[in-house]
Amino acid sequence: MRSTVEGAVIEQLKQVLDESRVLTKEEDRVSYSYDASFGVHIPEVVVQPLSTAEVQAIMKIASAYKIPVYPRGQGTSLSGGPLPVKGGIVLDFSQWDSRLDVYPDDMVAIVSPGVKTAAINEKANQFGLMYPPDPSSSNVSTIGGNLAENAGGPRGLKYGVTKDYVIGLEVVTAAGDVIRTGGRTVKNVTGYDLTKLIVGSEGTLGVITEAILRLIPKPPATATLMAVFDDIVDSGSSISRVLSSGIMPAKMEIMDQASVQAVEDYQPLGLPTDIEAIVLIELDGHPQAIKEEIERVQTICVEVGAREVKVARNAAEALELWKARKLVSPAIVRLKPTKISEDATVPRSKIPDMFKRLKEIRAKYQIDLVVFGHAGDGNLHPNIIADQRDQEEMRRVEQAVEEIFQAAIELGGTLSGEHGIGTMKAPFMELELGKVGLEMMKRMKQSWDPDNILNPGKIFPEEGQRFVLRSE
Amino acid sequence: MRSTVEGAVIEQLKQVLDESRVLTKEEDRVSYSYDASFGVHIPEVVVQPLSTAEVQAIMKIASAYKIPVYPRGQGTSLSGGPLPVKGGIVLDFSQWDSRLDVYPDDMVAIVSPGVKTAAINEKANQFGLMYPPDPSSSNVSTIGGNLAENAGGPRGLKYGVTKDYVIGLEVVTAAGDVIRTGGRTVKNVTGYDLTKLIVGSEGTLGVITEAILRLIPKPPATATLMAVFDDIVDSGSSISRVLSSGIMPAKMEIMDQASVQAVEDYQPLGLPTDIEAIVLIELDGHPQAIKEEIERVQTICVEVGAREVKVARNAAEALELWKARKLVSPAIVRLKPTKISEDATVPRSKIPDMFKRLKEIRAKYQIDLVVFGHAGDGNLHPNIIADQRDQEEMRRVEQAVEEIFQAAIELGGTLSGEHGIGTMKAPFMELELGKVGLEMMKRMKQSWDPDNILNPGKIFPEEGQRFVLRSE
Repeated sequence: MRSTVEGAVIEQLKQVLDESRVLTKEEDRVSYSYDASFGVHIPEVVVQPLSTAEVQAIMKIASAYKIPVYPRGQGTSLSGGPLPVKGGIVLDFSQWDSRLDVYPDDMVAIVSPGVKTAAINEKANQFGLMYPPDPSSSNVSTIGGNLAENAGGPRGLKYGVTKDYVIGLEVVTAAGDVIRTGGRTVKNVTGYDLTKLIVGSEGTLGVITEAILRLIPKPPATATLMAVFDDIVDSGSSISRVLSSGIMPAKMEIMDQASVQAVEDYQPLGLPTDIEAIVLIELDGHPQAIKEEIERVQTICVEVGAREVKVARNAAEALELWKARKLVSPAIVRLKPTKISEDATVPRSKIPDMFKRLKEIRAKYQIDLVVFGHAGDGNLHPNIIADQRDQEEMRRVEQAVEEIFQAAIELGGTLSGEHGIGTMKAPFMELELGKVGLEMMKRMKQSWDPDNILNPGKIFPEEGQRFVLRSE
Repeated sequence: MRSTVEGAVIEQLKQVLDESRVLTKEEDRVSYSYDASFGVHIPEVVVQPLSTAEVQAIMKIASAYKIPVYPRGQGTSLSGGPLPVKGGIVLDFSQWDSRLDVYPDDMVAIVSPGVKTAAINEKANQFGLMYPPDPSSSNVSTIGGNLAENAGGPRGLKYGVTKDYVIGLEVVTAAGDVIRTGGRTVKNVTGYDLTKLIVGSEGTLGVITEAILRLIPKPPATATLMAVFDDIVDSGSSISRVLSSGIMPAKMEIMDQASVQAVEDYQPLGLPTDIEAIVLIELDGHPQAIKEEIERVQTICVEVGAREVKVARNAAEALELWKARKLVSPAIVRLKPTKISEDATVPRSKIPDMFKRLKEIRAKYQIDLVVFGHAGDGNLHPNIIADQRDQEEMRRVEQAVEEIFQAAIELGGTLSGEHGIGTMKAPFMELELGKVGLEMMKRMKQSWDPDNILNPGKIFPEEGQRFVLRSE
């Protein structure tokens, strides 16, 4: 069902957008052929809309010719979200950042799809407010991409994910119509919640052209603690015990021995490498409250068997403690060139079991596997380091990733906590959702996009599709 | 399209459920003909399922015979959610409360649909946890009804509504299949978010048979304050100023002069009645934090022009301050027998404008209108008191309600903040959503329930349907 974008279509697109924003040269198109995941797919044309009316006009053309359309932000997707796998038109939203308005009295921000995520939080901060979702890519990624994939981040534990802050959307449908979902009020039960359905639907149901985001008061202070554990089970206990003591940290991050080792090899920070886990906890809130709470967290960590607990005495020391966590990604890509970053998520109580399963998988397939992530909400990031040129190794990696997914689902978890399904995980959808569950999702897709022109090839597996990381 | 439940169907239902749970006598059926809104519709049969398998079997029968099915909890709906307006089978879930399990390590509760909402919070409290949604009916209403309508409550400001705490569902489809949406992890981006789509869909997409709810640590302390304002605009300023100062109260409730007057006439508490508004604010969190914050809230209220500010010194005084708010509903139904409770919601900054519009509507139609509600999130409750037997008065009430909806939408708000659309507000859906928006919702409904057997007559307006409160 690969479509061909004919000359007539390009001409029509040039009548809708300024010619400078209709990219047809190969050197331009190649820049849109990849994201931060796997696979290379060159689109036939790239357009850069700057208004809702332009998106409508583009969709009407695409709809008339049944040409696939792929919305794209900055291409930081880890699951293949913006890849033009069936050819057609890439909608590049990275240039459309014209609107970033904060309305402090309503505690909302209204944003264009190309606005960078971090810019929203910075603007909110000027009014004593905060936009909580903090994907690690927030300085680079666009809000449009975050909305499409329902991006998470470390603050997810206390504050939730992107979806929890979206209260209204403007969306262009497959046919080129505009709908407005939700609105400017936090409470809204008028009909189906299309807002939360479209956020995280990976561009398969409509094209988001504007969003209304909820902001919250910015917490006045933070406190940071690092705890070192000889036994990974004890680190899990520290997390459960803190949460059941009435304390809700902003972040609870974990790093396994291999992560710590990689960091120490890359840039020695003096961390102990003969341990099983390091836990980093950040509290935020009222200064007096967190001063007292961080002491309680420290006591809990010692009680459950931490070898060592460090509390940052000031902002500089807090930064120093977070340095280890921030260095994991740069450290591991030094080991080998190819990084497969997963986000299998398990119920919080199953974290020790998941670590055990991951250890077995590492041994069984002889892969370089490091594990870190957001322990407070069970959202681990098993990262496999490999060399894509080594076909034999990549085959073992594929098998290992399959087993990671199976383990997560067997432990009552999910394929994806925050990266999305995209192309890569589509073959595993039925494993998690069952036949009927997947069928019900497909019905929604078909009812909204009967010609399957909105980001085809994503979320839903093709007939017989298998999980492949090798270029074939 | 009214269906008739034939004898054969009743016989089949009796083979699926114990006969004692298939109610066919008129005196039984009449009890299921109304809820807390308007209209009386007697179902042909009432069944009381106690398991998912029973619900599946019932749906297979209903599906085979194309008989409408209406899920029902305790019938506290204010929008007609469970009314069997097209005849058929009422699914009474009030008897199915067998499962209420709290898993403190995962901070989740798993519940059967007939469990009372307040019971969930009580059970969570035993583990130092909290289930935040607190609809005023929580001692009576079932979680199944709360899920269907996405119930709100005073704590919505800080904690959100029912939907924000649902992470997984078991749902029986129109055809009698079972699907599981979401799961036991807080983060989950595996495909479309069917969980949040089904919550609030008023039983029109599927029948919820189990839910996984997210719990949070219970805040250790609360603080309460009452501020009295001569000018309703100043009361709005107090709300905005508190929120932009970095303080997020658990509740911010407002009562207008007419509400205060009604309370004083009913049970004198010594409240001033020559004022325009009373604001009640509750903070929760760490004891030291809220002690300092409640002082700052007090200062802000005085600065923006409060005539008087009272801070409760202990729990007993806090209860005394909340008494006024709790007495509004019983007080107003003493004035006249019929209460029309609305939940039109506006952006927070538009609360003073909305109060102005409501004042004009009160004068124009000469109606008894009192206004109170959740000011922190713009979710007001304009309540009209009337006598249903007075047709002329009810006609004025109908016109007034229509104007209230129009005002809310014109101010950027919504028809319903927390009560749902049901039968009553269906005629106004297009006003808020537009033709295409409503059409896209209908497509979803049709793709999941092609025979329209799941709670027909709700949310979507019938051809030419008008808003009517009179019995015709």
